[in-house]
Amino acid sequence: MPVYIYGFHAVEELLKKGGVDGSLFYSKKSKKSDGLISLAQNKGLDTAFKNDDELSRLCGNNDHRGVLLVLKELPFSFQHDLSSALRTIQGSRALVVILDNITDPHNLGAILRSCDQFAVDLVVIPKRKAAGETQTVLKISAGASNFVYLITVANLHNAVDMLKKEQFWIYGADIQGKPLHEIDLSGRIAVILGSEGKGLRHLLKEVSDELIAIPAKGHIDSFNVSVAAGIMLYEVRRQQGWL
Amino acid sequence: MPVYIYGFHAVEELLKKGGVDGSLFYSKKSKKSDGLISLAQNKGLDTAFKNDDELSRLCGNNDHRGVLLVLKELPFSFQHDLSSALRTIQGSRALVVILDNITDPHNLGAILRSCDQFAVDLVVIPKRKAAGETQTVLKISAGASNFVYLITVANLHNAVDMLKKEQFWIYGADIQGKPLHEIDLSGRIAVILGSEGKGLRHLLKEVSDELIAIPAKGHIDSFNVSVAAGIMLYEVRRQQGWL
Repeated sequence: MPVYIYGFHAVEELLKKGGVDGSLFYSKKSKKSDGLISLAQNKGLDTAFKNDDELSRLCGNNDHRGVLLVLKELPFSFQHDLSSALRTIQGSRALVVILDNITDPHNLGAILRSCDQFAVDLVVIPKRKAAGETQTVLKISAGASNFVYLITVANLHNAVDMLKKEQFWIYGADIQGKPLHEIDLSGRIAVILGSEGKGLRHLLKEVSDELIAIPAKGHIDSFNVSVAAGIMLYEVRRQQGWL
Repeated sequence: MPVYIYGFHAVEELLKKGGVDGSLFYSKKSKKSDGLISLAQNKGLDTAFKNDDELSRLCGNNDHRGVLLVLKELPFSFQHDLSSALRTIQGSRALVVILDNITDPHNLGAILRSCDQFAVDLVVIPKRKAAGETQTVLKISAGASNFVYLITVANLHNAVDMLKKEQFWIYGADIQGKPLHEIDLSGRIAVILGSEGKGLRHLLKEVSDELIAIPAKGHIDSFNVSVAAGIMLYEVRRQQGWL
């Protein structure tokens, strides 16, 4: 699974941390980019010039600011299996986030930053399905992915089962759900968030112990998914006495 | 002040509401875009073809999905002066949001959607300063701007003074602030949010009655600004008993 990391700060952080394999592309020569290029070369990565449009095409937006790190594999901190990851999450208060089909890089980046800030124990995302399918690459604009314990799984349904066996209570974020501030969210909590627009898939609603929503009175569709995620994580951590 | 509205849904909503003057640009001919083109023409707006790259350049990103509405002026609901706006906000619980220098369209759009969802009474943003300065255009990807009472002011400092005279308590969002869940936010509340990265300007910190922060333990910089805004609005509305 190729991983695209862009933005100066994010790229620098990951290169400094090391243990990654891939290529650094840059569209400008400057003091800043020279520093990154040296760093990448010292770590044994390829470096190459590409023009701005090509970087934008790869990122899917114009936020790269002239540098793009393409990794061959997920950074090493991603590479663990769920059962061993879950065994490390002990205690009566815990918070796991499951992201189903959130591919927009702005939203994914913002959610991972919130997970970092609220010290979420684990983030679970689905692996792409079949080899023939268009691969959704992970494109992350902030350095958060480096500090969040993120795991990819082949089957979210199975992941939910494993969480239940580890005494997690599963909350699906859904517009029809109960107001989250009226629910006891103080224990071992896993929150499932679906894609913006489509919401949670039917199957994931069914495996949820309860559906939760942020009470709101808007005229338009809903919250941005990264904002909704942030509010839910805040409320869980507030109720857990973590704040 | 030109306003750029993009995304099919947002453009459609605004055209249906009417009372706007400007041009509709499209990069594809389809059933969907044909509908918007007819609608625009019925409302007396110009319509023209532009290629995808040109739309992306105008939007500053690739999220337009082939339609861009450029308005000559802010939609009519924006055009009120602050003192008359404030007179309409009565009662012991109210919520006003002041956005200083938040120009990223993703973030601004997400914040306005949250303001809509939490029925924020008023959003205040600064007018661009001098005619010679590069104009920051308002680029909004969701339809929220249509339903949020948004006002532009020449001077945020004066706006804060007027809010204080109307018995608002002014909270500046700042990483050095007090944990927001430990503060009584149940009254007439105005929250000031600064730009991502730079944070709140010194002057705006000084005029704040108190600085507030979301308690967090992240390794990287901070929350995305639209996520931070959403959490703060949630906490105010929760304490106000509005949820």
